[in-house]
Amino acid sequence: MNQTDAHSYSIGIDFGGTSIKPALVRGAEMIERGATIDPKKQDAAATLTAMEASIRHLCRALPNLVPVGIGLPGLVDSRQGIVHGLSNVEGWDEIPVSQILGQRLGVPVILENDANAMAYGEWKYGAAAETQNAICITLGTGVGGGLILDGKLFRGAQLAAGEIGHTSIDYRGVEGPYGNLGCLEGYVGNHQISQRALTAYRTAGQTPPTPECTPQHLAAAANAGCSVAKSIWNAVGDEIGTALSNAIWLLNPDAIVIGGGVAKAGKLIFEPLERSIKGRTSPIVHEKLRLVPAMLGNDAGAIGCGALALEATR
Amino acid sequence: MNQTDAHSYSIGIDFGGTSIKPALVRGAEMIERGATIDPKKQDAAATLTAMEASIRHLCRALPNLVPVGIGLPGLVDSRQGIVHGLSNVEGWDEIPVSQILGQRLGVPVILENDANAMAYGEWKYGAAAETQNAICITLGTGVGGGLILDGKLFRGAQLAAGEIGHTSIDYRGVEGPYGNLGCLEGYVGNHQISQRALTAYRTAGQTPPTPECTPQHLAAAANAGCSVAKSIWNAVGDEIGTALSNAIWLLNPDAIVIGGGVAKAGKLIFEPLERSIKGRTSPIVHEKLRLVPAMLGNDAGAIGCGALALEATR
Repeated sequence: MNQTDAHSYSIGIDFGGTSIKPALVRGAEMIERGATIDPKKQDAAATLTAMEASIRHLCRALPNLVPVGIGLPGLVDSRQGIVHGLSNVEGWDEIPVSQILGQRLGVPVILENDANAMAYGEWKYGAAAETQNAICITLGTGVGGGLILDGKLFRGAQLAAGEIGHTSIDYRGVEGPYGNLGCLEGYVGNHQISQRALTAYRTAGQTPPTPECTPQHLAAAANAGCSVAKSIWNAVGDEIGTALSNAIWLLNPDAIVIGGGVAKAGKLIFEPLERSIKGRTSPIVHEKLRLVPAMLGNDAGAIGCGALALEATR
Repeated sequence: MNQTDAHSYSIGIDFGGTSIKPALVRGAEMIERGATIDPKKQDAAATLTAMEASIRHLCRALPNLVPVGIGLPGLVDSRQGIVHGLSNVEGWDEIPVSQILGQRLGVPVILENDANAMAYGEWKYGAAAETQNAICITLGTGVGGGLILDGKLFRGAQLAAGEIGHTSIDYRGVEGPYGNLGCLEGYVGNHQISQRALTAYRTAGQTPPTPECTPQHLAAAANAGCSVAKSIWNAVGDEIGTALSNAIWLLNPDAIVIGGGVAKAGKLIFEPLERSIKGRTSPIVHEKLRLVPAMLGNDAGAIGCGALALEATR
């Protein structure tokens, strides 16, 4: 392998609340996946040492170590490379990760919010490739988002932009974690979908498909013809459509990328979602709009981080 | 006057539904205001000829004609310089204004949506100066908006971004012109404020301050201690605050500029608005946020257009 080839490689690390997944990436390709590290099994210092070892191992066949990008869930200063705090892991307050790992490895180490990393991956190599303005939304336990505006990842004044899950669809609605009444996540987060479905089955005097009634179970029920399940998906699609319509009026994007577990319901969610957006916006902003499922799946974050790490060296 | 001086001048034209106001501008300064032209008194061709004459007159003391920027209410292709249609004036469908006036005058003639022009003016020389990310909202008969993102006017894929007045605050609320249920303009447009106030006075068994109950009259009543009027302003502030909070979660701006007639209610609207934003967003996105009244008043559009015209020549 020559030096030129090595320049297109980077390490992308998807740092989740329960598992850290390092990978050697080249463009949209996951060249090699490293062993998963559990951030709850040891303190931050030991976790960083395990990450360093994994990075070195993934680069063993390359002539040099390559730039590293890490996507994290929580408050991350991507300019300074500092983790202010993570959503689901304790002991990561004010850790200068870029400086620590960068000094040990001798390569650039960049940090990014995980939703931004996914958005960047989908824009660079996935569903939003060749667009100038894209909104990416991930539907899971939480509802996250990332924005590509005028061909660049848009981060905002405090690097906190893209939080579509916290936007309101009803100014007098259910309360979100910041007093944000009607926050989208309070309607269409995984757990909320299950709770609503259980209530709907109870009201209809019907037995839910499973006691948990997860979005996956609810999708299976709807596909088997259950009208209660279908009505939940229609409502969820319309609610997400309201929040996205607001973002469309504001940003007039070329594309909207929908990812995360809930998006796997496919047509069940995409059809009411599209109907909602068409019904709530003007033709000028929706006629050429592409509404597309995410393409890179769970790898979007690592691929996006890898790409951002390479960008940072240019 | 030497050539260098002349380079800092431009013509800014505020093209409204009932009056076209050309002006010679330099930076934030209105050097000379031309006579107003009524676009409804003659057809588009005659209006363009009147505009040309006014531009030549305003430049009579300069060594050359200077670049021209025109802010218009409606569907404007600012890249091609074509007016697709105006909101309140007939006969302006598909008129290549930049080409027509540019050829006659021999200087660049650029077009911009009026809300964008105002936002640009306030960002370049007014209330949002020295910010990187600003949201400008104008509260009048309609509710318009413009965005400055990463230090640039953001226009979106079809040049239609910034329409905060069409975003929804209630997914099951009052219907807007595009089926957009709960659209902000349907709550806080001038006319809607008056109608709501009249209903509130009727319900309370009280006489409104005036039969029209305009926002101006309503502000006077509230300042005189009327509790019905105060409650309307509190509601209006909270509704605008909801739409702005959505924009804040999405874009994490440095500043929000509030302009237009309704903003003249001052504290009556700014206090509930600020309370609403603080109550609906997290400290990280609102602690450093500046919420400021527009500074350039009715001149913001002409000043913004003048600045955009100069930018286009660089």
